[in-house]
Amino acid sequence: MSSQVFHTTVTKPKASAKDGKGIFMTVEKDGKVYTNVIDAITGAAVGSLGWGDTDIQEAMAEAAKHHTYSFPGCIVSTAAEELSKFYIDQCPKGAFKSALWTCSGSESNENALKIVRQYQLERGRPEKLKIISREASYHGFTLGAMSIGGGPRGVPFEDIMIDQKNVCLKMPMFYPYRRMKDGETLEQYAQRLLDSLEQLIIENDPNTVSMVIVESMSGSSIGTPVPPKNYLKGIRDICNKYDLIFMVDEVMCGTGRINDGKLCCWENFLAPEDAPDIQSVGKTLGSGYVTIAGVLVGPKIYNAFAEGSGVIVGAQTYHSHDFNCRVALAVQQKVLKQNLTANVFKMGNLMGDKLQKALVDSKIVGDVRGLGGFWTLELVKDKSTKEIFQPSLKIGSRFANAALEHKVNLMGLTGGNTTGETWDIAVLGPSFIITEKDVELLCERIVETVKDFTKALETEGIV
Amino acid sequence: MSSQVFHTTVTKPKASAKDGKGIFMTVEKDGKVYTNVIDAITGAAVGSLGWGDTDIQEAMAEAAKHHTYSFPGCIVSTAAEELSKFYIDQCPKGAFKSALWTCSGSESNENALKIVRQYQLERGRPEKLKIISREASYHGFTLGAMSIGGGPRGVPFEDIMIDQKNVCLKMPMFYPYRRMKDGETLEQYAQRLLDSLEQLIIENDPNTVSMVIVESMSGSSIGTPVPPKNYLKGIRDICNKYDLIFMVDEVMCGTGRINDGKLCCWENFLAPEDAPDIQSVGKTLGSGYVTIAGVLVGPKIYNAFAEGSGVIVGAQTYHSHDFNCRVALAVQQKVLKQNLTANVFKMGNLMGDKLQKALVDSKIVGDVRGLGGFWTLELVKDKSTKEIFQPSLKIGSRFANAALEHKVNLMGLTGGNTTGETWDIAVLGPSFIITEKDVELLCERIVETVKDFTKALETEGIV
Repeated sequence: MSSQVFHTTVTKPKASAKDGKGIFMTVEKDGKVYTNVIDAITGAAVGSLGWGDTDIQEAMAEAAKHHTYSFPGCIVSTAAEELSKFYIDQCPKGAFKSALWTCSGSESNENALKIVRQYQLERGRPEKLKIISREASYHGFTLGAMSIGGGPRGVPFEDIMIDQKNVCLKMPMFYPYRRMKDGETLEQYAQRLLDSLEQLIIENDPNTVSMVIVESMSGSSIGTPVPPKNYLKGIRDICNKYDLIFMVDEVMCGTGRINDGKLCCWENFLAPEDAPDIQSVGKTLGSGYVTIAGVLVGPKIYNAFAEGSGVIVGAQTYHSHDFNCRVALAVQQKVLKQNLTANVFKMGNLMGDKLQKALVDSKIVGDVRGLGGFWTLELVKDKSTKEIFQPSLKIGSRFANAALEHKVNLMGLTGGNTTGETWDIAVLGPSFIITEKDVELLCERIVETVKDFTKALETEGIV
Repeated sequence: MSSQVFHTTVTKPKASAKDGKGIFMTVEKDGKVYTNVIDAITGAAVGSLGWGDTDIQEAMAEAAKHHTYSFPGCIVSTAAEELSKFYIDQCPKGAFKSALWTCSGSESNENALKIVRQYQLERGRPEKLKIISREASYHGFTLGAMSIGGGPRGVPFEDIMIDQKNVCLKMPMFYPYRRMKDGETLEQYAQRLLDSLEQLIIENDPNTVSMVIVESMSGSSIGTPVPPKNYLKGIRDICNKYDLIFMVDEVMCGTGRINDGKLCCWENFLAPEDAPDIQSVGKTLGSGYVTIAGVLVGPKIYNAFAEGSGVIVGAQTYHSHDFNCRVALAVQQKVLKQNLTANVFKMGNLMGDKLQKALVDSKIVGDVRGLGGFWTLELVKDKSTKEIFQPSLKIGSRFANAALEHKVNLMGLTGGNTTGETWDIAVLGPSFIITEKDVELLCERIVETVKDFTKALETEGIV
């Protein structure tokens, strides 16, 4: 039967999720049912708790009984207040003062762009308009969010985006595997990028630049390269020097995915006093049970509003949705109580370590990189030259299909930038509940996948 | 205690919803608790079923047990397929072929803009780029959606929107109360607007125009004016003549709010063969229980994709979310089973009729307009001249506060366009379960509100 859902492929039937329990799921694809699949990517790195968590199911049933919908422009949900307090309390002290709860990471970034724009207007700096983001970055799939993204999927829509020439500026991506020069240390490479950022700001008149936004760690765009400590700190310092807002997008990498016990990814790289001014979050916040994301607002922006008009322009119908906030709070309370972010930090690093060792001699795995619960294999045609596969071969996507045959759900894709450069990656972001035994099984299956996939490519004469 | 939710006002405590049952709710504001408040606007016209519906609470508990989150870019939810089928089957035969489920009306309009852009690319017409929407319209609060809106709240963000000069064009709003000329019939007024639309297209080179988007009936922007039959039909014909996509935004006015038994608002004005090519929906779809909205895709667009690349560029993490789709389906099944859209059509018209009669001699209610479950009072300083109140008085918002004192929750606001023109309206959009007795009580309370509010304005020397 053809599909009536306007997703991915227009007419073809799609793979569908049948069931899930813990880190395992059942998937049906092309008439074949795959049981006991390890969900190693949890959608798009969404899972913090596993699927079918009975505590959350009960929390949802309870929330269903008590929640009341109201339009936050007029009447706010008390659950939204509770979630704000809970989240802000788990961030470094003083980092954030207020939070807005939205329905997706895209919406969070859209709202953050508006908040920063209003911030500049509140302080009487309308000329501070330009937004600097990174080449090959991903910040969502609504038009404003796409405007600050730098991937190939945005290209067809450039004519209906925010001004790509005068407003949305791009700094180089952080991608050591492909961009670090011979003989350069990671810190030197980072410093080169920082110099290039500062140059971009100077060339574009610092008085007209509003903000810099980066993912604390990239996710699906270039696959989890770990920055050295001087990188984000350098961006923070440059933002201070030129009076720019420093925003981090932690929709994919944050809310516990990469933190040894707390929530923010940037804590791996920045001291509390170097906190971003504003931050988007999502995914693991609601663990896929509800469609929630958020924006955390730091004191600099908060105070400009409070001392200015005191009013935030506009509100969306479903912002700070009571039911979503209640369920997200239940998810986060469980994550905290069971210390699950520390667990996935440890287990993820174990997984990465095992894969690095097991795949060191692989012909096609050029790099295994990541931190905590977020890892990537980069697939290459030639390991010594880092030569890419022909993009038309869609190796990333084929590798994901091969993994499913070995009962692993991961995100395989061909990433790229807007200038036609591409690369193939397979991204891993398991639920925070993953155990040592699960990690062993998962690594075995991935190693088998790589082995079989390499053979298939050899047979086809591709490698 | 100050608020930690970044909504509406930055530091001040907000009104909060405490509880809700059927059409009644409990609201706390400035330390005062208002019980048995008739929720006459259900957030932002979101409610189809009332609050605390035990059938839906059970459906949510059940859905919580069975849903599995998956990323629709890779694995689609079967519940999304079911909801698509159910919704499309309730639309006029042949109108739509596929549906995308998003998390908000804003996201729906963002995705629709992208779908239409890709449609033009699929058929090799990249030069067809310009989007025509209406002055004073509202299509959401993300940046792409705001770019096609025409209200004053968008003005501060114009510099970070889609090109407002060369891409986003505006046709005049449909607003008979203020824009119809003496001696003109409603049909003649509509024809004048159609001529103006055609002129706009010709002046901007029809080969470079992509689409026209209008709300089938305006909601919070200018408050529910009912178009004559020649209006939407005229837009449809103009779109056909110049090879443009005709899109309707039914996020607020659709999904049963204004239809004597079915879902689409445009069925009041258009024959099935004049169906829009694409349509956004939301709000009453999930009745505030879940944060869901959608895009319905008609055969013209569907076929261009199917015969073209067959692939839809991009997918958002929470699109076609399994839990949201399950719950929305339960809501819609109940609405259908109990024939509730026919009920609210009848009860809404009864409410409008009662208010028109009861307020005919009111000094400040200049107009009572609407259809089915969606009505508006327009408040004026002088009824004979239609003189507006000073915008700084925020009469719309003050009227909503006055209504709350009479235990009515409605949406009172000062609307406007981007050129500084304003008006004050109070919008009503009750749940579909409203009874004749409820309507009587609601109308009594509104009439009392108008009486007291007029007195207060007289005391202050405003009228």
